[in-house]
Amino acid sequence: MQKDTGSGPSTPSGPTARLRRRRGSNEVPPEVDKGNGSHLLVNDHNKYKSMITRAYSSVWMIGGFALIIYMGHLYIWAMVVVIQIFMAKELFSLLRKTHEDSHLPGFRHLNWHFFFTAMLFVYGRILSQRLVNTVTMDKFLYKLVGRLIKYHMVTCYFLYIAGFMWFILSLKKKMYKYQFGQYAWTHMILIVVFTQSSFTVANIFEGIFWFLLPASLIVINDIAAYIFGFFFGKTPLIKLSPKKTWEGFIGASVTTMISAFVLANILGHFQWLTCPRKDLSTGWLHCDPGSLFKPEYFTVPEWFPEWFPWREISILPVQWHALCLGLFASIIAPFGGFFASGFKRAFKIKDFGDSIPGHGGITDRMDCQMVMAVFAYIYHQSFVVPQSLSIEMIMDQILVNLPFEDQRALYMKLGQIIMERQFGES
Amino acid sequence: MQKDTGSGPSTPSGPTARLRRRRGSNEVPPEVDKGNGSHLLVNDHNKYKSMITRAYSSVWMIGGFALIIYMGHLYIWAMVVVIQIFMAKELFSLLRKTHEDSHLPGFRHLNWHFFFTAMLFVYGRILSQRLVNTVTMDKFLYKLVGRLIKYHMVTCYFLYIAGFMWFILSLKKKMYKYQFGQYAWTHMILIVVFTQSSFTVANIFEGIFWFLLPASLIVINDIAAYIFGFFFGKTPLIKLSPKKTWEGFIGASVTTMISAFVLANILGHFQWLTCPRKDLSTGWLHCDPGSLFKPEYFTVPEWFPEWFPWREISILPVQWHALCLGLFASIIAPFGGFFASGFKRAFKIKDFGDSIPGHGGITDRMDCQMVMAVFAYIYHQSFVVPQSLSIEMIMDQILVNLPFEDQRALYMKLGQIIMERQFGES
Repeated sequence: MQKDTGSGPSTPSGPTARLRRRRGSNEVPPEVDKGNGSHLLVNDHNKYKSMITRAYSSVWMIGGFALIIYMGHLYIWAMVVVIQIFMAKELFSLLRKTHEDSHLPGFRHLNWHFFFTAMLFVYGRILSQRLVNTVTMDKFLYKLVGRLIKYHMVTCYFLYIAGFMWFILSLKKKMYKYQFGQYAWTHMILIVVFTQSSFTVANIFEGIFWFLLPASLIVINDIAAYIFGFFFGKTPLIKLSPKKTWEGFIGASVTTMISAFVLANILGHFQWLTCPRKDLSTGWLHCDPGSLFKPEYFTVPEWFPEWFPWREISILPVQWHALCLGLFASIIAPFGGFFASGFKRAFKIKDFGDSIPGHGGITDRMDCQMVMAVFAYIYHQSFVVPQSLSIEMIMDQILVNLPFEDQRALYMKLGQIIMERQFGES
Repeated sequence: MQKDTGSGPSTPSGPTARLRRRRGSNEVPPEVDKGNGSHLLVNDHNKYKSMITRAYSSVWMIGGFALIIYMGHLYIWAMVVVIQIFMAKELFSLLRKTHEDSHLPGFRHLNWHFFFTAMLFVYGRILSQRLVNTVTMDKFLYKLVGRLIKYHMVTCYFLYIAGFMWFILSLKKKMYKYQFGQYAWTHMILIVVFTQSSFTVANIFEGIFWFLLPASLIVINDIAAYIFGFFFGKTPLIKLSPKKTWEGFIGASVTTMISAFVLANILGHFQWLTCPRKDLSTGWLHCDPGSLFKPEYFTVPEWFPEWFPWREISILPVQWHALCLGLFASIIAPFGGFFASGFKRAFKIKDFGDSIPGHGGITDRMDCQMVMAVFAYIYHQSFVVPQSLSIEMIMDQILVNLPFEDQRALYMKLGQIIMERQFGES
């Protein structure tokens, strides 16, 4: 390999040039270190070593993840919360690191105060709606939960206001600008962390499918981009993250689309994954999975090659939706990664943290997941939810928010309106 | 007045000392300029002049405001939107001013892109729910509005994502840090501006009362603090805004509490103010104002002085709620003002803008209004809304979000559950 040094301009697209691009040294123009062969050799070695470390921790993560999926909705939720706490921890400590000189003692507590207020706000709502379905039999608990829901918003508001006043009273002269900056960044961090996790949790309860498929697609896209980039990467994709190449991007897109289509078919056959969870129990799930998950049979056209083993294939309608998710996961979600890369460059940090060997911080792995989770939720709500689910959501509201007398009043009123409209139509 | 100069330490609490505190020169210790009488005279003159300018524009604002209240909900909403645009304009241009050196051309458009996306998101929802009540008779429009609502969220999401991608693609080397900072601040500005206005608009449609009373209380508290501070201000309240004194704060609190109680009684007698508005018309409002606005009569106790003109007084139950609003407006809402003061000091600006003579920018007048609007909404939702209103909200949802067949399905299902529970109880 060391002989490569002499070959000069004839191998600009060889492994060494590729490597230089992928190691992120875009400050140094490619011509400068061309003669330095031994250096490249070391880098080449590192390249494989880092790949193995990364693969190793990936296998562990995927294994643990599969176990949690098997354990059920509440455990997945717990996992999301843990990830979220780690993310907040990484980002908060980053906030302090970049301004190490002007460290303020109370501010760390204030950050976590806001964090837990946001947590109460976001999860209190989700939790209480499930809780009410769980305790619907016990009249006292039912009332208690109803009361909790009623004062949930005002409690969160006063917790926030308390933090807000705390912040104002802790302002120190000559530190104003720094403190206001910290306050703003804390809010940004909370938005980032909670947008991600609240949409993810919402997806989980809509059916694990709607959490697992998008999350897997991002992982597949990441791995595929890494592998394609590793073996075929030549043309740099975007200046922001010099490790990414067009070859990796395109290869990953194709892989992701195919995986989405296949994976949706596999996952779509398990009721454990497709049924929504309306309460907080961890028991087995049975439901009518709906038309989306009922296979439709297509005869394979005559002109299909003879080696193709099936003459008839079954496709779940949800697979077409999976293609949309795949398209998003491979084209738009990577922008979450670019954003994170740009952010890291802006503040001159390599990784957001060092929680996962070979991967960097948890936040580094979550950049695209975040964009994806929000999309998956909105896509599901806008294009997938059959009307019958909307009915159930409104039913939930009625049973949760209204006392029994009002439920009856609403029933009467609705009956009246429906009668009127029926007469109006006929 | 010039003779005051010689009296030295014997008048530290006289008008000049008060003045020094109220002019905001807390960088200069009081002892330094004590001998400089002519200076104080000039300041004193300015003090009255600035008060007159301020009073003059206040009268104009209050007059215009009263006219808009008279014109109705839609016009008040329009006013809120105009205020909101001015605020965003002031804050966005501030963002550029503080970093004049590194001005980026496309960023201004991007800011407004996010602004209008947020606007579509926040108001689209409010608008469409009212709209559906307005067009409920026309079957085609009803369906169209239903469709708009259905794709509202996904539209907003893609508009946001477009802005997000635009931002990433517009990142310029060596500007990363500045650009990410701008991105974060843009989000903070949008949160501030839209939290304020979306809660305000929600209040307006709950009944103008719930917008007008809190907003008036803030204005009254501001004016009272100014007047009390002007005539009796001695003891500085908080370092952040040196113009504020304990005397002003306490005087204003008492005034605000009394005003809240009296004002609620006056405003509570007009149906135009107390009825909620469910559609988008501007016609006259008639409704059963509910028990909150039905006067209760109390006999004045015997020991009351004889000069008191009434032997029986009528009190609306809503007046007790008004006291809570008054308490918040005078104790906690001022922290919005402290926050704004601190922010202005941090970034070394005098005002957020110069739209209103004597007052500074519109943002300067909105600091406490914002905190108050959010509280008024949450208070109203948590403690005031009678259950009958909740019924109407859910009815709205049913009629807006569900096609007719599903409305019937829900009706059947609800009937079944109510039947079951009734049997379970008896």
